[in-house]
Amino acid sequence: MSQQGTGRPSPTIGRWSRRGVLGAAGVGALGAGAGVVAGRAGASADGGGAGELTYAFRGAHQAGVVTPVQEHLHFAAYDLVEGATREDLIALLQEWTAAAERLTRGQPVTEDGAVGGPLLAPPDDTGETLDLGAHGLTVTFGFGPSLFTGELGRRLGLTDRRPAALNRLPLFAFDLLEEPISDGDLCLQVCAEDPHVAVHAIRNLTRIAFGTAMIRWSQIGFGRTAATTRSQSTPRNLFGFKDGTANVMSDETEALERWVWVPDDAEPAWMAGGTYLVTRKIMMTIENWDRVSLDEQQKIMGRDKKEGAPLSGGGEFTEPDFTHVGADGEPLIPLDSHVRLSHPDANKGQRMLRRSYNFVDGNNPLGQLSAGLFFISFQRDPQQFIDIQNSLKADTLNEYIRHVGSALFAVPGGIRPGEWVGQFLFD
Amino acid sequence: MSQQGTGRPSPTIGRWSRRGVLGAAGVGALGAGAGVVAGRAGASADGGGAGELTYAFRGAHQAGVVTPVQEHLHFAAYDLVEGATREDLIALLQEWTAAAERLTRGQPVTEDGAVGGPLLAPPDDTGETLDLGAHGLTVTFGFGPSLFTGELGRRLGLTDRRPAALNRLPLFAFDLLEEPISDGDLCLQVCAEDPHVAVHAIRNLTRIAFGTAMIRWSQIGFGRTAATTRSQSTPRNLFGFKDGTANVMSDETEALERWVWVPDDAEPAWMAGGTYLVTRKIMMTIENWDRVSLDEQQKIMGRDKKEGAPLSGGGEFTEPDFTHVGADGEPLIPLDSHVRLSHPDANKGQRMLRRSYNFVDGNNPLGQLSAGLFFISFQRDPQQFIDIQNSLKADTLNEYIRHVGSALFAVPGGIRPGEWVGQFLFD
Repeated sequence: MSQQGTGRPSPTIGRWSRRGVLGAAGVGALGAGAGVVAGRAGASADGGGAGELTYAFRGAHQAGVVTPVQEHLHFAAYDLVEGATREDLIALLQEWTAAAERLTRGQPVTEDGAVGGPLLAPPDDTGETLDLGAHGLTVTFGFGPSLFTGELGRRLGLTDRRPAALNRLPLFAFDLLEEPISDGDLCLQVCAEDPHVAVHAIRNLTRIAFGTAMIRWSQIGFGRTAATTRSQSTPRNLFGFKDGTANVMSDETEALERWVWVPDDAEPAWMAGGTYLVTRKIMMTIENWDRVSLDEQQKIMGRDKKEGAPLSGGGEFTEPDFTHVGADGEPLIPLDSHVRLSHPDANKGQRMLRRSYNFVDGNNPLGQLSAGLFFISFQRDPQQFIDIQNSLKADTLNEYIRHVGSALFAVPGGIRPGEWVGQFLFD
Repeated sequence: MSQQGTGRPSPTIGRWSRRGVLGAAGVGALGAGAGVVAGRAGASADGGGAGELTYAFRGAHQAGVVTPVQEHLHFAAYDLVEGATREDLIALLQEWTAAAERLTRGQPVTEDGAVGGPLLAPPDDTGETLDLGAHGLTVTFGFGPSLFTGELGRRLGLTDRRPAALNRLPLFAFDLLEEPISDGDLCLQVCAEDPHVAVHAIRNLTRIAFGTAMIRWSQIGFGRTAATTRSQSTPRNLFGFKDGTANVMSDETEALERWVWVPDDAEPAWMAGGTYLVTRKIMMTIENWDRVSLDEQQKIMGRDKKEGAPLSGGGEFTEPDFTHVGADGEPLIPLDSHVRLSHPDANKGQRMLRRSYNFVDGNNPLGQLSAGLFFISFQRDPQQFIDIQNSLKADTLNEYIRHVGSALFAVPGGIRPGEWVGQFLFD
């Protein structure tokens, strides 16, 4: 697989972040000439360092999938407005492509930008990131099932372009979904090392969509809870446990082909090099979790809290031994533990690339934090997610979580030079 | 004024952040031995650099006021639960002091922490920041008017300890306050360079309060919109303009004494070295703002968008010349502009120390971002804020903002060795 445009950092630009994001391959030279130790890199200010980090926008695959997971997320799902036509949608995708490519380079949405246009007109760009750089911004585009179905699908002439796999996700055990924060015709996953940069991108892309599409729901996330490169340390989720230890990594070429990227000979052809994006907004009843004993917490996860090692022994990256039995005759990794039920061994070997974020949306009237995990996974076939999620119905963790939002989007293949996103959908 | 404990970085620890936060005085050596250029510092990963930044918890004043403004905020206002006694409150303040001091050092809330306690008990610390450092965490404590008044004030025996200046803020012109996100008996302002660290602090301090106090409202903020040191660049708010150019800076010793710190001979004595904290949740109708011409935006602010220079000419830090008149005979800085009405010249010379943050709380059902400014100011007397806010009633900016939350808290003086926060309130 070509590494071009798969979200790898531009080779001449340093890759800075806070939690050892850096692989030696991605490390360039600091503008100021300071030396950098791989895995202990420096982030800098006022246009240097982190601000200057950019990822390629164009390539064989969209950015924001295997790209080293950035620290901040602003995700938005959009619905087309009533009466929007096929031509409106095409124009929007063209404008989004042009604007997103500029933003990805750390530029304002147009050449006029925030301050270069006519004084008597509203500026093209809202300007709040004028002094910041790209901060590793990626914009990933997706199409929801509803774009292809019903009256909308007919109006857009897309009824026969729907991938067979692109259906509304089924209702899973314990789902308590809220309609207004589920599904959507289109989506933008925006990730960056700076929250201001991510918010600016969603704000300006939403502004461009005015008259054609509007935000259906959106989600701010912080503190990646997954790694996609081996030089990124494994982060912790709000349960305090390391998350995503067994994620598909950006250097696992074979696993990416098998589990993440839609192959080039796929049907429909416009999905070649694409992937399917699942989002699940998972509320955590963290106050209840915090009253659970350390022992019970570890048994629920199937890992120890300190190191993230499986309860069968070893270190964080030791493969769990599900056959290992303790002195009491019980498996050391309980049958209803999260690691056992989510493990490929329990799911016909299936894997996904996860890219989830923590969120805190304020508090509820009881004074509890409205907090949780905004789960994001990418897979070649949505069935991978469906199978694994079904397997989790026996998971004891379900006592402490509540799935309230759910969505599936088809992420078309990479945008090559001269192309706009989703172009082949309209061929 | 002594600089001890006023939030200055510990001299042996480097001061890293993304937007040139660093003054040369605060720069130490990177653990890895890399050189650091002041104002272009490096932030590092896995426990180094930014993670290791700490501010002194104890001193003549509380931290989190003149401390260089961190990038992330988690603010929470608390109400005492029904039946909470004076002894309960004292115990809470003692426990909060001990836990906050540890968190400020990058330690878990107790020595047992997240993984060192008994296996069969819930861990003392929730553990999600086990692998992170302090990231410049500060915790600032405040007491609301309601703690001293009514039945609660009598039950706590605090009726006669209320500072005369500590009253509920008046209703200002255009206020559209929502009760559940205004006021509160207690508050914690938590700031850090990492959102995970800030959230972890509020979560664990809230957990400690269980049975005595509960969150009334809370707010996550990102991207500081003020600077308190001259080496910090002036950031932009969500209107795209530089904000806080004329802030009281941490090196303005006289101005701090005059406008921020309550003097040592103050009444009541427990407020000596303290300050008053105002919060205002200000929604911005950014979609409307974004449709305003650049010319009109600049006239509303009274500054140019690119540089932040006053419309009377010069650069960002040039003093506005309010007498300057254009060819049309009109003042270059309009009479109803924000910079004119908020300027000390229009407010009997009064100033405040501002420490506000951007927020985005998702979107409303119209697809507009629920975004704005979480305004925070510190002043020696709440009247400073009241006067300036009253002056702003003629501000054209009011067309694009909506104040929905409001609170005032008395921030007691610094916590010296062996003391706990607010101790002298109970003498």
